[in-house]
Amino acid sequence: MRDPGATHRRITLTVQTTPPYDVHVEPGVLARVGEAVSAPNVALISDENVAPHYAERVVRSLAGAGARVTFCPVAAGEASKSLTQFGALLSELARKGFTRHDAVLALGGGVVSDLAGFVAASYMRGLAFAALPTSLLAMVDAAVGGKTGINLPEGKNLVGAFWQPRAVLIDPTVLRTLPEREFRAGAVELFKHGLLADPWLLEAVTRPEFRRDGPAAFLTETVARSVAVKAAIVARDEREGGVRAHLNLGHTLAHALEAATQHRLSHGDAVAYGLLFAALLSAARGYADETERVARFVAWVAPAPLPELSLDDLLPFIARDKKHLSRARGEAQQRWVLLERVTSPVIAGDVTERELRAAWTALQARLAGLEEVSR
Amino acid sequence: MRDPGATHRRITLTVQTTPPYDVHVEPGVLARVGEAVSAPNVALISDENVAPHYAERVVRSLAGAGARVTFCPVAAGEASKSLTQFGALLSELARKGFTRHDAVLALGGGVVSDLAGFVAASYMRGLAFAALPTSLLAMVDAAVGGKTGINLPEGKNLVGAFWQPRAVLIDPTVLRTLPEREFRAGAVELFKHGLLADPWLLEAVTRPEFRRDGPAAFLTETVARSVAVKAAIVARDEREGGVRAHLNLGHTLAHALEAATQHRLSHGDAVAYGLLFAALLSAARGYADETERVARFVAWVAPAPLPELSLDDLLPFIARDKKHLSRARGEAQQRWVLLERVTSPVIAGDVTERELRAAWTALQARLAGLEEVSR
Repeated sequence: MRDPGATHRRITLTVQTTPPYDVHVEPGVLARVGEAVSAPNVALISDENVAPHYAERVVRSLAGAGARVTFCPVAAGEASKSLTQFGALLSELARKGFTRHDAVLALGGGVVSDLAGFVAASYMRGLAFAALPTSLLAMVDAAVGGKTGINLPEGKNLVGAFWQPRAVLIDPTVLRTLPEREFRAGAVELFKHGLLADPWLLEAVTRPEFRRDGPAAFLTETVARSVAVKAAIVARDEREGGVRAHLNLGHTLAHALEAATQHRLSHGDAVAYGLLFAALLSAARGYADETERVARFVAWVAPAPLPELSLDDLLPFIARDKKHLSRARGEAQQRWVLLERVTSPVIAGDVTERELRAAWTALQARLAGLEEVSR
Repeated sequence: MRDPGATHRRITLTVQTTPPYDVHVEPGVLARVGEAVSAPNVALISDENVAPHYAERVVRSLAGAGARVTFCPVAAGEASKSLTQFGALLSELARKGFTRHDAVLALGGGVVSDLAGFVAASYMRGLAFAALPTSLLAMVDAAVGGKTGINLPEGKNLVGAFWQPRAVLIDPTVLRTLPEREFRAGAVELFKHGLLADPWLLEAVTRPEFRRDGPAAFLTETVARSVAVKAAIVARDEREGGVRAHLNLGHTLAHALEAATQHRLSHGDAVAYGLLFAALLSAARGYADETERVARFVAWVAPAPLPELSLDDLLPFIARDKKHLSRARGEAQQRWVLLERVTSPVIAGDVTERELRAAWTALQARLAGLEEVSR
């Protein structure tokens, strides 16, 4: 049965970057891409998981609007964010005679949009780019902010450009085909946006409707409110000098956990732990105690078990995290995002090793408690 | 004997891009790079022709200012503008632990600054970049404008970014070590700047002091005035939508000549012919007749002989030139830069094939005349 909300609700947010662009959240919007994107040639970059479900309707809509479409499938997964894949896509555009009046579209998750965005930013020094995110993470995170990039053998996301899309089209009904684990991974960033700026989201993720095949109108509202939080922050800080650092809530520990485990722990799971760690650090400083609420959410996410690491295993990676390196390096300069209370993030430059140790111990105790409950 | 001008004359131009930056033209400035560039880590990218002459003084100046310098030599020549070399440099920066607070310097000609600029634009989505151009072409052309990029197997400069340098430091005394052919190739763009906006330059290139080892004060003035022309145009049109097209004076035919000869004809020689072609097209339209002055300059440049091509050989390449493709393609839409008179360029969208044929015939006749004179 068709969800009645699907035909009625469209939310448009304008992201105030230079130049501004619109994010449309609308059930069924993938079939109307041609109305929003116009160029003589369009390269549609997608991956082998997503394309079988959604590429055809996008191609049909673009072709209906008169575009010549070059379909560029890439392998699913992080390995596609390589210099080799980047070069292959650029050569494909050149062979098809793309000019700077043409456009690149990303249909997929974060890997596809990071890669396609960097192709768009670099081919002839920049083509129009539009993102059609299909994972919850890409909808609420990767598709807004203008960050594009690929990996080097030496590390992730070391190469890229800030390149704002002309438009972002989000069809929340495509979440039905997303694996449950990826849905929960995206929910972690959505929950983070709730902590930073919108308590409604903290409540929304606890509702029974918050599921991959939930009511379209509810998913539209939830996704749009999460996008709105990120868009507001990005608009205030396009190139990541100031308030954009708030988006790193939970990410300082998460990056260390990912690095220390050679990414065996997924990003979503790592950030889930990172958010609980930030809540514990905040509470220990006498800020509002949100650990209970965050812990309940983490239990729902059901991340892979916390790796058996000591804080000493993590400290070198914490010190190296590029997001909080300052010019004069040194432990005292590390910047942690904490919460004075929900919607009031603060940047703390004076978190001591003693505080980190206490929070790490508290995190492990808390997780043991969660396991008790779920048994 | 030391040129007395060398110690006294420094010309600083501010290029009004976003953000603005300074171009310093000053004899001996390479030994004072450390005063202008400050970063914990500096990657100095240079080529094997230039580095033996000038890298040591630059490294010493940077080290004296407290920077840790990573010296990155690349092979001389266009082949270094490859995705492979790009990746190798990015990996080198990653291995040395470069962060977004560090800087990339280009010491060399256009190949080095295009490549190094794109590395700076892309590593961690953008580091500080400074250019130390050592060829006349790079001084008056490549180092100002923010264009960076590399080649694909499918074509030149198909990949890149607009990335403005933090500073450009030009030491005109380094022209002594430049091959004469390259000096004259650079003079072609300098002469073009004279035609577009500064008649003083047209006179300057005819003086006996206009030589690689000419008086430092005169070379400083000449280079600075040429940079000023390009800087003024670029500042009005940072991302190449409007008046920046004037810089393509002579380049539409030049690109076709280069493409039709698989780049056996050098860019400088091709533009020399292109400028004369533009002068002939302009005169035939009843605009001011500058063909005599341009022909005398071309004789001094002494380009390699014009390839034996018919206009029909060139037309397909003229139609394909990316610089004058408009959205609705077709011959009528081709845009040629002509001169109403010196300092008054105009964009003509209505140049007919008949006009092109007449100018091509006139060009060949004019060149035959020049050969007579020089015999």
